[in-house]
Amino acid sequence: MDEKGRNGIGRRGFLRASVAAGGAFVAGTSAARAQAQAPDPLITEVQPWAQGWGDGVDASPYGMPIRFEADVVRRNVGWLTADVISSINFTPIHALDGTITPQGCAFERHHSGAIELSKPDYRLMINGMVDTPLVFTYEDLERFPRVTRTYFLECAANTGMEWAGSQLNGSQFTHGMIHNMEYTGVTLRTLLEEAGIKPEGKWIYVEGADASSNGRSIPLEKALDDCLVAFKANGEALRKEHGYPVRLCVPGWEGNMWVKWLRRIEVTDAPVESREETSKYTDTLENGISRKFTWVMDAKSVVTNPSPQAPITHGTGPLVITGLAWSGRGAIARVDVSVDGGKTWKEARLAAPGQDMAITRFYFDHVWDGSEMLLQSRATDSTGYVQPTKTQLRAVRGVNSVYHNNCIQTWWVKPNGEAENVEVS
Amino acid sequence: MDEKGRNGIGRRGFLRASVAAGGAFVAGTSAARAQAQAPDPLITEVQPWAQGWGDGVDASPYGMPIRFEADVVRRNVGWLTADVISSINFTPIHALDGTITPQGCAFERHHSGAIELSKPDYRLMINGMVDTPLVFTYEDLERFPRVTRTYFLECAANTGMEWAGSQLNGSQFTHGMIHNMEYTGVTLRTLLEEAGIKPEGKWIYVEGADASSNGRSIPLEKALDDCLVAFKANGEALRKEHGYPVRLCVPGWEGNMWVKWLRRIEVTDAPVESREETSKYTDTLENGISRKFTWVMDAKSVVTNPSPQAPITHGTGPLVITGLAWSGRGAIARVDVSVDGGKTWKEARLAAPGQDMAITRFYFDHVWDGSEMLLQSRATDSTGYVQPTKTQLRAVRGVNSVYHNNCIQTWWVKPNGEAENVEVS
Repeated sequence: MDEKGRNGIGRRGFLRASVAAGGAFVAGTSAARAQAQAPDPLITEVQPWAQGWGDGVDASPYGMPIRFEADVVRRNVGWLTADVISSINFTPIHALDGTITPQGCAFERHHSGAIELSKPDYRLMINGMVDTPLVFTYEDLERFPRVTRTYFLECAANTGMEWAGSQLNGSQFTHGMIHNMEYTGVTLRTLLEEAGIKPEGKWIYVEGADASSNGRSIPLEKALDDCLVAFKANGEALRKEHGYPVRLCVPGWEGNMWVKWLRRIEVTDAPVESREETSKYTDTLENGISRKFTWVMDAKSVVTNPSPQAPITHGTGPLVITGLAWSGRGAIARVDVSVDGGKTWKEARLAAPGQDMAITRFYFDHVWDGSEMLLQSRATDSTGYVQPTKTQLRAVRGVNSVYHNNCIQTWWVKPNGEAENVEVS
Repeated sequence: MDEKGRNGIGRRGFLRASVAAGGAFVAGTSAARAQAQAPDPLITEVQPWAQGWGDGVDASPYGMPIRFEADVVRRNVGWLTADVISSINFTPIHALDGTITPQGCAFERHHSGAIELSKPDYRLMINGMVDTPLVFTYEDLERFPRVTRTYFLECAANTGMEWAGSQLNGSQFTHGMIHNMEYTGVTLRTLLEEAGIKPEGKWIYVEGADASSNGRSIPLEKALDDCLVAFKANGEALRKEHGYPVRLCVPGWEGNMWVKWLRRIEVTDAPVESREETSKYTDTLENGISRKFTWVMDAKSVVTNPSPQAPITHGTGPLVITGLAWSGRGAIARVDVSVDGGKTWKEARLAAPGQDMAITRFYFDHVWDGSEMLLQSRATDSTGYVQPTKTQLRAVRGVNSVYHNNCIQTWWVKPNGEAENVEVS
């Protein structure tokens, strides 16, 4: 167990530090010790659950969360889209910890609904500028050399409502168009090389089997680099709403390109300029000109606790501030936290060294004095890029965009522990 | 994307190799290319799922696997225990890939059933040889510095039926008393140091809130090293059957010690010699003497595909052989695969470098000629320990044990692709 954090403090060193924090814990709240002295029927009496049988193993061939966690679910926002079929279900990031997003509550977005497509009905075609057009069955895909990698998927529209001003009150809604899963599949490179790319092939166009087809163009360089034709997520088959049986992974690039129910890959000499990369998924600047092909998700972070859906309920003293950070350009190198709206910053602890294009969990152990906080986090990635403020981002991009808002988020934590989405200048 | 496998071959190098394998793929089966030429209504006609709406996002606030995967569930074996309450539900490892086990299908074992314990009803006591006995609420635990780590949990009885001979026909049943999850919680060291350990304290005794209490003694050295008081697994709250709201993680040590619904930690000067460490969870040798306190799970591996529940259905040619490896003493350093019952071995490819006390996925890309195979895998861990054969293990331990069988497993793969659990001498 020799893992060391980015600041060079080993586990033992950190834990020595935590003993000091523990002292503060007792001084700050005295909760634990007080309870040890006052009679508490929960510890002085034998409770019902210690007196009889619980559930047998036949109760849960496939288990679900316990009923007490019924609030930890994906949620949609009625007014955000015209209907629930072409819509978005946000990950409850305010209620999760660690880095893995369980499939059951992982962000979903589809343009014509989640379709049901069986493995026997599945086909993947590769055509266009290739030596040999190919059609693969699901079973064919399982026979190619396989890889397993953990990646985040972030929708380009994540945090999009923040361009105009602070809108949505909760990290689930401001930053929940994201998930982070361990994918297993075949590299796209393997399949493209199986077909053989003709010299004039410079792009691919990928589309799904659903009615929207959601076609997108991807430069061949990216397609041959790290894209994955995935059939498992977090060990098991993809869920229906995540593209069962096969989806594309385009690590670090906007989620719309991670085509679900992947049906066809056409090798082309130029981008197709599809709806999804012209009228949508482009970013209109202040002067009315739109940026297009803005594929990469820049470094970003958000404090998930405390936050509007996860207020402080325990009063002053020790407070674990935690959140998520990620970058489409590499690994997270560092996260800083500010409690005063960005005037001063302190380095947070990363739960593990950052991994390329995967979510990193950060922790910041704070002793809260009960005064208001303007809570922020700021990610730095392995390229040296630092997450910008909203002011910096607007100075460059204006406020007309929907997509690619990676600015620093501010939660105003009030003396009563509640939090609100606010802007600081 | 500069990750390199243990054999020093980078991704690009591997993929060049896979192109050659791809050639063999076509030569061996011609399936993909043939399909590209024959009319296939699944690609020549617009299918129903491309003509209408799918499910809206309101369909799955918390999603479940698609109905086509209804067989990928935990299963119990009726005759293995007296009833389903004190029993075992095996992970369907033959149907999973990657390394993460989803909570919904992760191995469960309980001695008096899975109890329902809410966070408000939860208390954790630390007493015995401590400076200050403490009782923590769930909310108290959330205020201590938090860590996130991925660990395997393996029941000591996993593969136990193999001592006497090959018994169970499927990797789910021979090796499915295991899971691998990303845990978030507070180190046990943090909590013990909060209470203050008296000089005479050398052990801890841990027990759960269920009727069985399942008490176990753990040396203080281990308790202060890497044990975790965990409240999340794979990002979300523990499931009821995994000890909601709080369980103990004892990395690399037998699963019985990972006490669920963790209620009490007593610091003692000696082991308690509880039922679970005397009449159970000891290993009777040939001479009738039992080993006790055999906590560590030694290095082990198993081929999950192909295997009895996952036969080869695609005929000769390219075949992905894959499986799992793990060690309670460190990281997996290497996995070798044999197709001839251990006469010759070839090194498998690890999906990622091994991590301490976590599962490693291995892949072995084989071209199957259709003849029978005696398929084995052999793990080597970072201490240099090599997984033994069944013959080697029996020579030392006899056949009277139930627990700690980490021998090499053999699947007899027949020319028709079916597989059986067999022994080789």
